[in-house]
Parts: sequence; C-alpha cells; structure tokens
Amino acid sequence: MLYLTRRYRFSAAHRLYNDALTAEENARVYGKCANPYGHGHNYVLEIAVAGPLDPATGMVYDLAALDQLVQREVLERLDESYLNQQEDVFHHLVPTSENLCLAIFNLLSAEWPANGRFPQAKLHRVRVEETNSNFFEYEEPAHENSRKGK
Amino acid sequence: MLYLTRRYRFSAAHRLYNDALTAEENARVYGKCANPYGHGHNYVLEIAVAGPLDPATGMVYDLAALDQLVQREVLERLDESYLNQQEDVFHHLVPTSENLCLAIFNLLSAEWPANGRFPQAKLHRVRVEETNSNFFEYEEPAHENSRKGK
Amino acid sequence: MLYLTRRYRFSAAHRLYNDALTAEENARVYGKCANPYGHGHNYVLEIAVAGPLDPATGMVYDLAALDQLVQREVLERLDESYLNQQEDVFHHLVPTSENLCLAIFNLLSAEWPANGRFPQAKLHRVRVEETNSNFFEYEEPAHENSRKGK
Amino acid sequence: MLYLTRRYRFSAAHRLYNDALTAEENARVYGKCANPYGHGHNYVLEIAVAGPLDPATGMVYDLAALDQLVQREVLERLDESYLNQQEDVFHHLVPTSENLCLAIFNLLSAEWPANGRFPQAKLHRVRVEETNSNFFEYEEPAHENSRKGK
Amino acid sequence: MLYLTRRYRFSAAHRLYNDALTAEENARVYGKCANPYGHGHNYVLEIAVAGPLDPATGMVYDLAALDQLVQREVLERLDESYLNQQEDVFHHLVPTSENLCLAIFNLLSAEWPANGRFPQAKLHRVRVEETNSNFFEYEEPAHENSRKGK
Amino acid sequence: MLYLTRRYRFSAAHRLYNDALTAEENARVYGKCANPYGHGHNYVLEIAVAGPLDPATGMVYDLAALDQLVQREVLERLDESYLNQQEDVFHHLVPTSENLCLAIFNLLSAEWPANGRFPQAKLHRVRVEETNSNFFEYEEPAHENSRKGK
Repeated sequence: MLYLTRRYRFSAAHRLYNDALTAEENARVYGKCANPYGHGHNYVLEIAVAGPLDPATGMVYDLAALDQLVQREVLERLDESYLNQQEDVFHHLVPTSENLCLAIFNLLSAEWPANGRFPQAKLHRVRVEETNSNFFEYEEPAHENSRKGK
Repeated sequence: MLYLTRRYRFSAAHRLYNDALTAEENARVYGKCANPYGHGHNYVLEIAVAGPLDPATGMVYDLAALDQLVQREVLERLDESYLNQQEDVFHHLVPTSENLCLAIFNLLSAEWPANGRFPQAKLHRVRVEETNSNFFEYEEPAHENSRKGK
Repeated sequence: MLYLTRRYRFSAAHRLYNDALTAEENARVYGKCANPYGHGHNYVLEIAVAGPLDPATGMVYDLAALDQLVQREVLERLDESYLNQQEDVFHHLVPTSENLCLAIFNLLSAEWPANGRFPQAKLHRVRVEETNSNFFEYEEPAHENSRKGK
Repeated sequence: MLYLTRRYRFSAAHRLYNDALTAEENARVYGKCANPYGHGHNYVLEIAVAGPLDPATGMVYDLAALDQLVQREVLERLDESYLNQQEDVFHHLVPTSENLCLAIFNLLSAEWPANGRFPQAKLHRVRVEETNSNFFEYEEPAHENSRKGK
Repeated sequence: MLYLTRRYRFSAAHRLYNDALTAEENARVYGKCANPYGHGHNYVLEIAVAGPLDPATGMVYDLAALDQLVQREVLERLDESYLNQQEDVFHHLVPTSENLCLAIFNLLSAEWPANGRFPQAKLHRVRVEETNSNFFEYEEPAHENSRKGK
Repeated sequence: MLYLTRRYRFSAAHRLYNDALTAEENARVYGKCANPYGHGHNYVLEIAVAGPLDPATGMVYDLAALDQLVQREVLERLDESYLNQQEDVFHHLVPTSENLCLAIFNLLSAEWPANGRFPQAKLHRVRVEETNSNFFEYEEPAHENSRKGK
C-alpha cells in the first residue's frame, strides 16, 4: 500500500459563532474567533490517497484527475470566500476547521472514484492546516474503508 | 550597522473593494478578492530594526520593548479582525497588503523609539507576507532616516 | 475520529552523556553531542489529540485549555533551560529527544483530561523536532487507549 | 514504540515515459513529465525507524549508522543523477516517485539491520517529497513486520 | 517606494558542463553537477517589483499581469524542461543558476512594463532558489533603473 | 552584480549574561536568556557573496571553496558547542546573535578571498536565524567594500 498526498492552498474568512448559544457562551467557547465580521486564514489542504501501485504506470492515482476534482468540489466553492456563507458545504454548522475537514472529505467522497483507471485507490485522509500552529485531520475508519471495498 | 528582524503572525479578513469605482471596475482590478463578505489570510509580519551594536549589552534593540509595541499598536487592532472595519488604521483606504505595510510602518513610527536605551536604532522595514506566494515590503527612504536622525 | 495537532516551540540546551558509561563509550554512542558544557536546539513540539467531533461546538478539544496545560507542565519547565538540570522531568535519564518525547507525554498524560467538556478526547501523540533533520514521535499503543476508555 | 525520522535531500532528473506505451498514451498518462530529455527535482527523503527505547542509551537507533547506510545505498546512487539511467535501482521501471519510494525501501531493507546494537528497530516508512505539493509514502504492512520479527 | 514579490515554482533538469573546457576541468569546476545526463531541481523563483503606491487601487502592480508575463516568458519555456536544450534562453551559456537569474531578468525586462496602469513600477530583482541551501539574486544597478525612468 | 547565498546550520548553547552587570541588571536586559547553565538554538547561517558573473564558468563564486572556509572557520568551532566557552571567537563578549553575526563576518573576512579564481567576489552579508522569529544581519558598509576593491 502506497500513499500519495497532494497539497492545495486557499484563502477564506470565517467566524466561529453558534446562534444556538448566547453571546457569552460563544465568547467563552471561541474566544476572539467569535469577533463580529470574522477573520481569515490561508488554509493548507492536503488530500491523501491510498492504493496499490499500478504496474503499467508506476502510479497510485492520477494527479490531474485529483486536481480537477479538488478544484471543482472544494476550491471553486471555498477559495476567496466567507465560509459561513457556504451553506451547501457546512449545512448550518459552525465552520471550524474540524467541520471543514469533514465537509471536504464528504465533498470528495461523494464523487469518488474520480478516475476509473485506479479503481482500488481510496480517499484516505484530509488534513487542514489552519495556521502555522493548528492542524486538523480526518481519516475514514479502517472498517468503513473495507466495507466500501466490497 | 546591524539589522534585527522579528517575525509576528496574525489572522484577519479583508475585502478589496473601492466604493469610488463601479462593481465592474472592482472586479477587473481586484478579481476574486472583491467577492462580497471578504476572505482572509494568515499574515506574517516582519519588523526590521537597524542600528549600531550597543557594546554594553551586545544588542541592537530590546526585543521585549519591540514585542510590546507591536502587540499594542498592531496585533491588538488587527489580529482576528476584519480589516475593512479598522478605519483608524486604514483611514478609508482599501486594505491591500501594500496599504497594510504602510499603515503598520506609520503606527510603529509614531511611537518610535519605544525604548530609550537604544536611541540610534531605527525602524527600518516592514514586510507583510499575505500568502505563501505574495510578499510586500516598505522601507523608509534613506534621506528621511538621516533627517530624523538629526 | 478527528485529530487536532497544536505546535509549540521552545529553546533548550542538553548534553548527551551517561555517567554509567566511560568517556570513550559516551563519545562512541553520542559523538559530538557528548561535548562538555552541552549544546542546544530550537525544539518544535507537536501535541496531537484524538477525539470525536463535539456537535455543539464543532470542536475536538479546547485549544485554550491545551495551551494552558502545555505552558504549565512543559514550557515553564523546559523553555530556556538546560535539560540535564531538569531532574523532575528526566529522572536521571539522558535527555535524548526520545526520552524528551516520553517525558512530555507522561507530564501531559498525568494531568489528562485538562478540560471536562471533551471527555472522550485522548492525548494521541507527542512529536519532537530536534533539528531540521531529526524528528521523534511517541504514540500510546492502541490497546492502552481503549483500556483507558472504559 | 517510538519513531525516529531522519531527513535527507538529493537532486536528480527523471523522465516519465514507458516504452511499452505509445507516445500518445505516455502524454496522456504523464503529461509534461513525458517531455524528452527529462526534468528534475530536489527530492526530500524521510526514513522512519520504529523501535523500543534502548534504556542504556536513551535512543531508538544509531543515527550515524543510518546516515552511512542511506549514503551508501541511496545517495551515492541517486544524488545528482538521471534516475532513468539507474537500472540497478529501478529494474526497468518508470522512475515515478511511487517506484522511487519502493526502490529506496527495498535498498535499505536488504541491508537491515545496519547496526547490531538496536536489533528490534525496524525500517518503518520511506517518504519522498517530489515537489512542494506532492508527497509519497510506503510503509511495510504490519503483518510482514511481525513475521520478520520472529 | 514599496516592493511586491511574487513566488513561482518550476521543475527542470540541467547539466553544468562547458564544452570549451576539458572533461577534467569541468569535473573540477562543477563537481558532480557535471555528471552526464544531468540532474534536476525544484526551482523557486521570486520576482520583485518596485514602485510607488497607486492611490486609486492601493496597489504597486497588477499581479494578474505579472502572472501572465511570467507564465508566458518563463514557465512555459522552462517548467518540466531540460535547461541545456533551451538555447533561446541560454544562448549557449552553461545553465548555472547565476545565468538562469540573468536570463529570466532579461526575458521579463524585454517585455516590461507588461501593464500600462502602473507605468512607474520597475522590475527590481530576480531571485532563484536552486536547492534548500543555495540562492541566487540579480538586481539591476540603481543608475540603470533611473536612466530607464527618464 | 549577482548575489549568491549559501545556507548552513549548526546547533549550539549560549547564556546571555554580562559579568560586568549585576544579576538584576542581567535579568532585566536578557530575561530568561540569562538563566544559569544556558539554553540553546538551531542556528541557521546564511553567507552572501556578491560579485560579477565569471563568463568562463557562469558562476559568481566557488561553492566548494566557500563550504571549506565556513566548515573550518565557523562550523568546527561552533557546532555542538557552548558559545560562551569559545573565547577566541567572542573575545569575552556576550554571545548574542548580534555579536555572533559580527564574529562570523570577521572570521570569514580574515581569510577572504578563499578562492583565487574569483578575485572580485566579496563577502557581502552574514545572516543568523536564532529562532523561527528572530533574524540578525550584518553587511559591511558600501564604502569599505569599495576601499577594499582598490
């Protein structure tokens, strides 16, 4: 099993604020991230694909197909945007980086596999770097991967 | 002459949009950066101080004094903020990174020197890294530095 | 399961020298790291927490609580210190980065969970970057995690 | 179980072209990477070793022994080379970074353990960073590790 | 005067070998970089533009115009290429990174200014990062800048 | 005029403490950096050389000669050392990074030019990165460069 990871970058704004909580609770939970009008980040997004080596090409997956998928499903929606406005992505959830990881995994997973040539390649992990100090990762549990593999 | 550079980080949102221009002109000049609601960045800020070596301490400037100045004048205003709302910083200017460089230089310059122990140390340069690909720098012209030194 | 990783930095000195070995053996095992008076590093410390997504906050853990814990248990002891002098941390062990990983994991683990709001979040991994070329990681074995989870 | 990772760098050229395919198929699979005369990269190579802590030294493995092994088996062959010419490494395979990962794992594995003092330390993972955006990893499956451990 | 710097990346191969020298002289001057078939790098290219702030836009230059110019004049020629084959760029010179800096400066300078909106903006500096350890810069001398400014 | 910059790394310990001051003054000036036993850093050292392009080689300077000079004059003395003990380098000065910059410039300058093939190449700048946040630079004044050039 080999892992291929591809790095993308996008810039977006967000505000961490849950309307179901009071202003005081929001301030306690989210601190300055609850400031009105929001703030922003240069997000670094890493998509990891796991699969066997295809002997004909010496590749695990097709980078051009991955780029197209990430461009269409993720970057066109989120780059240069205010995340709180992207309701089709967050479905009324607070756009924390944890929810961002899950949302991106689900957006890509719904269109997977994007390339028929590498049928055994799986979407393995989504990693979001929010700042130089905070990283978030979501990996699908191993048993779900194998169930899907049937 | 020695140079000391100190790096700071802050996260903010901005929207590049000039109300004096039409929506079409804004789109042509600023591209996706004119999107409504704004987007954001993790700004990397580098402040360079130039000065002679103080023989008693072996230092060019006092980092703790610089940290306090930058914290009070810059980070408390801009970190986790929506830059377009910071009118006392931008004075109705569009918060491009060029204007951000100049605004930060002026904020620090107005309080300079922050530490009387190093009277010859000058604020030399402000550098703002907006994304992994774009950097902006402002250096005060040499003759103004010398005029101030009188 | 989501993973949140937070990066910290500290600067410290150490000397790799085991008093139970001869000077020749120390030189053979530790090379120049056995030099008298020690040398130092800018350590990069990454703490990974694993847990489910808390639906109310969209978070895996509370970063402010993690910061306080790491500040109090790790950074106040080790930053700007000579590691060989920190006997309550190393318990007479040689302060290699392997022992540093384990010591930091144990310091944090003894106070875990630091925040009652996220009872299922676990301390997952400690990673220490000693130089630009050497990284060390300690992960608690999976079975111990599940035993603790009962 | 602790993990030690050591980073190396080398510069090489390669051309992605499979003689068993037509020129059109090569262009479709490899894009501009199939350009005649090849192109090149600064490869970042990370070798991870997993093992228990040796109580006498506080170490997982001997970095000097690892450096010698990687220098002799990998860097002397590949640094400043044209990978397609290194037939003893690639055995007529296309020098994709996936094949490079596997080839380096096999080169090191054939000489493992390079140091008798740490008999339980295993070669755990080879990671190749091809560009600032593409990373590749190979880990030996868990069961093979334990089979070897007998 | 403000400086805007934009970072680009490309991957290419080169061989340092001067046909006017003997093989022994080439080996002495260029070391392993003279190996037959060449080797390669991930080049990081930084283009710095200097100019006054345009008050209408708050910008020094138009990044989209700079991107188009660099794409057309530099990246389309050099990315995924074997530099020694690019005779229209190197004019039979050895493709060292010093010559690469100069060649890129000249390619861009010949088409400057690429955008009529910022007539005072000057091409200030070309910086090429060849590896993680080697950087090269070319700046046009100050008097030539001012002569052009007439 | 072209600039070539070469990056080196070394690890060392230091303590910022001036015996001519009281303990209280040392604490006020140097903060935690005055802690007994010292602490340490992974220093990143960049040496910049300025010169014309040598047409025969396409080079500004000989990297192998620079590496030998830096290895012998700087790294053998300072790597894995306690800087306060290196009296032939610091001449009883406090080993701040400012003094370190100057000391390294002087060590290299005393042996310059290290390579007769590039007689016009000058030692231009020494830059020391002490931590991820602090950088120090020393450049010889322009008039001294020209005086030497006679």
